[in-house]
Amino acid sequence: MNHNEIKLFSPATVANVACGFDVLGLCLDTVGDEMVIRKVDKKGIRITKIEGFKLPFETELNVAGVSALAMYQELQPDCGFEIEIKKNIKPGSGIGSSAASAVGSVYGINALLGSPLNKTQLTRFAMKGEALASGSEHADNIAPALFGGFTLVKSVNPLEILQIPSPDNLYVTIIHPQIEIKTAISRAMLPKNVALQDAVTQWANVGSFIHSLHTSDYPLMKRSLHDVIIEPHRSKLIPHYDEVKKQTLNVGALGTNISGSGPSIFSLCEGIKTANQVKDVMRKIYSNTGIDFDIHVSKINTKGVKVL
Amino acid sequence: MNHNEIKLFSPATVANVACGFDVLGLCLDTVGDEMVIRKVDKKGIRITKIEGFKLPFETELNVAGVSALAMYQELQPDCGFEIEIKKNIKPGSGIGSSAASAVGSVYGINALLGSPLNKTQLTRFAMKGEALASGSEHADNIAPALFGGFTLVKSVNPLEILQIPSPDNLYVTIIHPQIEIKTAISRAMLPKNVALQDAVTQWANVGSFIHSLHTSDYPLMKRSLHDVIIEPHRSKLIPHYDEVKKQTLNVGALGTNISGSGPSIFSLCEGIKTANQVKDVMRKIYSNTGIDFDIHVSKINTKGVKVL
Repeated sequence: MNHNEIKLFSPATVANVACGFDVLGLCLDTVGDEMVIRKVDKKGIRITKIEGFKLPFETELNVAGVSALAMYQELQPDCGFEIEIKKNIKPGSGIGSSAASAVGSVYGINALLGSPLNKTQLTRFAMKGEALASGSEHADNIAPALFGGFTLVKSVNPLEILQIPSPDNLYVTIIHPQIEIKTAISRAMLPKNVALQDAVTQWANVGSFIHSLHTSDYPLMKRSLHDVIIEPHRSKLIPHYDEVKKQTLNVGALGTNISGSGPSIFSLCEGIKTANQVKDVMRKIYSNTGIDFDIHVSKINTKGVKVL
Repeated sequence: MNHNEIKLFSPATVANVACGFDVLGLCLDTVGDEMVIRKVDKKGIRITKIEGFKLPFETELNVAGVSALAMYQELQPDCGFEIEIKKNIKPGSGIGSSAASAVGSVYGINALLGSPLNKTQLTRFAMKGEALASGSEHADNIAPALFGGFTLVKSVNPLEILQIPSPDNLYVTIIHPQIEIKTAISRAMLPKNVALQDAVTQWANVGSFIHSLHTSDYPLMKRSLHDVIIEPHRSKLIPHYDEVKKQTLNVGALGTNISGSGPSIFSLCEGIKTANQVKDVMRKIYSNTGIDFDIHVSKINTKGVKVL
C-alpha cells in the first residue's frame, strides 16, 4: 500500500440508544465495512469496487459517493479519489450501514489530504450521504462511527457532538433479524406529540444514563436504559421483540432496546460473559422462528473509524 | 446548646433547573432558614417558635410539623421534639421555602436520634411536608436541600436521587419579585402534551448539561441551559422576564431561567464577578417597575442542610 492509498475499518453503530432517541449513539468494534480510498490524478470521485452487497456504482447514487462528492466540491483538491467498498454491514439492518459507508469515504479522503477537516466538519459531509439513504440529514450513526464510544448529538444546527466516556467492560450484543422494515412505516410509528409526564421520565433517564457513563455505575445504567416514548410503538414492527427483551434482561443484560429504527435489537452488558449469555438467548429465540438472523458481540469501540 | 438540641441552616433551592423540569435542582448557600430542633421527654411534635413569617403553629398544618410527624410515627422514638423556625425564605417565592422547613425538621430529628435514616429515606418524609404545601409529593426542592449541589431526581417511585458534581466557580444570582403566582394558575400553564421534536431538544440539553457538570465545561453549560418546554408558557406569568433574561445573558450569565414555578428568576454564572454584574442588571430592571424584590448571590452549596 502506498501513501496515496488508505485502507479503513468503518464501524457499525447503534443509534437511538434506549432513552436517547435521536441523540445517543454508540460504536461497535467487531462489525464494520472495509474501504480503500485511493488518491489519483484524474479529478472526481469514482466508486471502483463494491463487494458484499449490491449497491450503485454511480457516485451520485451511492452514499459513500455523495458524501465524498460534497466534501470534494468544498475542498476542490487538485486530484481525484477512487473508493472501494467491502460491505459487511447489510443495508437496512438498523446498525448504521449507510453511515459506515459515508464515514469511511470522508474520513479516508480527509486523511489522504493531510487532515484539513476535524471530525465535526466531516460529520457534516457524511450527513449528505445519510440524506441520500434515509431522506434526512441526521448524525445519529455518523457521530459514533466517526468519534467512537458513546456520542450525544446535542444539536444538528449548529452541529454539536459530545463524546461521552464509558467504562471498559461494557459490551453490546446485537441481533439482526433479516426482515425488512420500510422507513416510511417506521417513521409513521413515531408519535408527533408525547405526554409531558413521559417526556420528563425520558429526560430523567437520559440525564441518569449520562451520569452512569461518567461514573461507571452499571446498576444505574440498568435503571436508566428505558425508552417510554419510542419503543412502545416501534417494537411492534419487530417479531419476538418482547420475548427477546424479557429473556435478555433475565440473563443479566443492562438494557435491551431497538437499534436505530430496527429491526436489529441490541443489549448492553457488563462483561463478555453476560454478553455471550445474551447471545445464546437471542439465538435460541430466533432459531425457532424461521427468520434468518445474525448476532454480533462487540466491545464498545472507543476509537471509531480507523486505518487498518 | 446541649446534646438534646441542634441548630441548623436549611438552604433555599432552585428546582426545575432550565432543561431539567421536574428533575434537576440545585442548592443555595447564602439563603436559608435557621431552625432549632430539641429533643424533649414529652412525646409528640410541637412547633414552639416561628419567626420571620406568619405560619401555623399547629403541627398538622405546618410543613415542618407534618414532615416531622410522618417520620416520628414511623420511628416511634421514646421522646418528643420541639421545633423552632426562623424563617428567612419567604413562602411562595419559588426557591423552596416549604422544602427548607421540611428538610430542617427531618434532618434535625434524625441527627438527634443518632442518624438511623439515610438522606433518601429522609427525602420521603420531607415530601409529606411538600404535599401539604403544594398538593403533591415531589422531591424537586427537597433533594437539593438535603443532598446539596446539583441533584437529579431520577424517579419518585421508587425514590432515586443522584448527586451530580459541579465545578467550584459556579454561582447563582436569583431575584425574587414579590408578586404572587397562584399554584393553580402556574400548574394550568403546563402543557399536557409536547411535540416529540421539542422533547428531543430538551433531553439532548439535559444530557449535555449533566455532561457539562461532569467536565466543568462552562461554555457547554451555557449552550445546554435552555428550556423549550415550560419556560415559553410560565415565563408569561413573571413581569419583565424576557428583559431580565436578555440582559443577564448579555452580561455573561450562562443561563437564566425560572426558579421552580416562579416568580423567582435565577441565573447561573461562572465566577462571582459575573454573578454580581447579573445582580446589578436584575436590580436595575426591577427598580423601575414598582415591584418589590430581593436579590441573592450565592455559590452552589455542595453540602445541603447543615448543623450550625
